[in-house]
Amino acid sequence: MREAEVIARLRRIATDPAARSLLDDVAVLDNLVITHDSIAQGAHFLPFDPPASVGWKLVTVNLSDLAAKGATPAGALLSLTLAGDSEWEDEFLGGVEAACESYGLPLIGGDTIALPAGAPRVLGLTAIGRAGPKVPGRDGGRPGDSLWVVGILGDGAAGLEQLLADPAAQGPMVDVYRRPIPQLEAGRTIAPHANAMMDVSDGLLLDSARMAGASGCAIELELDRLPLSMAFVAERGDTLDSRLFAATGGDDYALLAALPARLDPATLSLPQGTRMERIGSLAKGEPLLSLSWRGEPVQLPEKLGFEHSGDQYRGLPDPPVADRS
Amino acid sequence: MREAEVIARLRRIATDPAARSLLDDVAVLDNLVITHDSIAQGAHFLPFDPPASVGWKLVTVNLSDLAAKGATPAGALLSLTLAGDSEWEDEFLGGVEAACESYGLPLIGGDTIALPAGAPRVLGLTAIGRAGPKVPGRDGGRPGDSLWVVGILGDGAAGLEQLLADPAAQGPMVDVYRRPIPQLEAGRTIAPHANAMMDVSDGLLLDSARMAGASGCAIELELDRLPLSMAFVAERGDTLDSRLFAATGGDDYALLAALPARLDPATLSLPQGTRMERIGSLAKGEPLLSLSWRGEPVQLPEKLGFEHSGDQYRGLPDPPVADRS
Repeated sequence: MREAEVIARLRRIATDPAARSLLDDVAVLDNLVITHDSIAQGAHFLPFDPPASVGWKLVTVNLSDLAAKGATPAGALLSLTLAGDSEWEDEFLGGVEAACESYGLPLIGGDTIALPAGAPRVLGLTAIGRAGPKVPGRDGGRPGDSLWVVGILGDGAAGLEQLLADPAAQGPMVDVYRRPIPQLEAGRTIAPHANAMMDVSDGLLLDSARMAGASGCAIELELDRLPLSMAFVAERGDTLDSRLFAATGGDDYALLAALPARLDPATLSLPQGTRMERIGSLAKGEPLLSLSWRGEPVQLPEKLGFEHSGDQYRGLPDPPVADRS
Repeated sequence: MREAEVIARLRRIATDPAARSLLDDVAVLDNLVITHDSIAQGAHFLPFDPPASVGWKLVTVNLSDLAAKGATPAGALLSLTLAGDSEWEDEFLGGVEAACESYGLPLIGGDTIALPAGAPRVLGLTAIGRAGPKVPGRDGGRPGDSLWVVGILGDGAAGLEQLLADPAAQGPMVDVYRRPIPQLEAGRTIAPHANAMMDVSDGLLLDSARMAGASGCAIELELDRLPLSMAFVAERGDTLDSRLFAATGGDDYALLAALPARLDPATLSLPQGTRMERIGSLAKGEPLLSLSWRGEPVQLPEKLGFEHSGDQYRGLPDPPVADRS
């Protein structure tokens, strides 16, 4: 059974409304928004990543899912595996603790197990948030909506590339890769107005395609408008190639929101310094992406993002719209 | 850092009331009871255990924690790792599905990640239940309470021993080891009356010692009264040794409840066939165990149960009573 079949099977099992057909990054139960992300050594973090940054990232990638639903952190359960390196585990917990403190996420439970000798670590977190007045799904985008990104694209993937070339690499993009910042406050502010919202973690194009599929709309993206950092442009330039890299790289933990076209985000009380760019729009039509750069159409790259990044069932393209209820 | 230090550190981080000081098997948030248990291949299940039974057990050991809190299953998030054996994963999911269906636990989310080649599987489940009128902790036992066991002791450990001697072993005790039955209905019925309740999964003596420590009471156990199955007695006899085996073996998933002495469980509407035995009592004094058999005191064995079985921070003896708030 391939991974896609596994996930298709899980979707057949998960018929409860709280599961949101497993099409979202979260489950919603009563007033709580619940997500679980696991990361495995050698698959989701580098063996030489500082353990504190692994702990930070485990917490913040889960918080990013809460942010995209406008939820306020309420509690977390840590699934900790011990692999016999107490210094690593101590530093890892320091990172977990720092992220929990930074974002007001109380650690309320979990599980600690010893791994068999030699097993790579698998670390998980269940994050629970309190829902705001609206919990936007991926599937509420409407033709005519504007598509916005909150945050910066490309830095995380560029930081990872720097590290793969030189494990001692440092700098702002390495920091972004290792220590993502969940857009919690912005997510809470935008969620009540959003028709659809999700976090961008597997690559803007892949995540946009998922929103398009779930919402049953076409999405038109203007690559010129992607929010890039000065560090990114200084290192990789501002070309079609660098913009496609930023659009497919993943590890962004920005937010992607479909907002009514009439809404002017400048009227929202976003946290100071929030970067929010209108990168495209939703339109009637097949749930496909189309790209443009400097007014000219651009062909979709073969690889839209990371398919098996480990977030909630995001490995699978959304099923055909006709299959959804 | 040893495991005990890891857990002590987690306790220092987990100061939120919902965490119950990590002294319980669950967290309680609003009206929801939340638990997470992980299992690792080679540590918590046998490489030759049928995958469907591993899936069943992952679900039911979590449900056992909900049962002990009188909660009604409301949803689960599955943390699934794929190790490249699709037949195994298919059968595993069949077991998960069967257990979820049997106990009305909707699968509402989770995470699927691919493991690096050769990594042993680590599988986790976050189970969420709706609280009943009371969510008994481990710490509410009072001197004078009667101590009851709901279910059977010893079969799971005896089944495991049969399998370790002969991987092809079969029979009722192997079934109990592989397919525990969570006492959900009995837990819901008893919880409103219980001063303390927990599930017995690491061994009766160890779990009783934890209840004694958390409740600040002595516990006196009469080994004669342990509920044993006919299969167990037929295979291992009814001796002091066999009773100590049953009291320390673990993998029981029975319930342990401290009830007011005046309460007669016969007046409760327990599910038909529920076996419930009064095995001892709580008393004033140091939070220590004392054992008797046929009216004579019995020395505590050195090993009270399984210390690192993987349930929620149960690897650590409860901290000295004076340290708790």
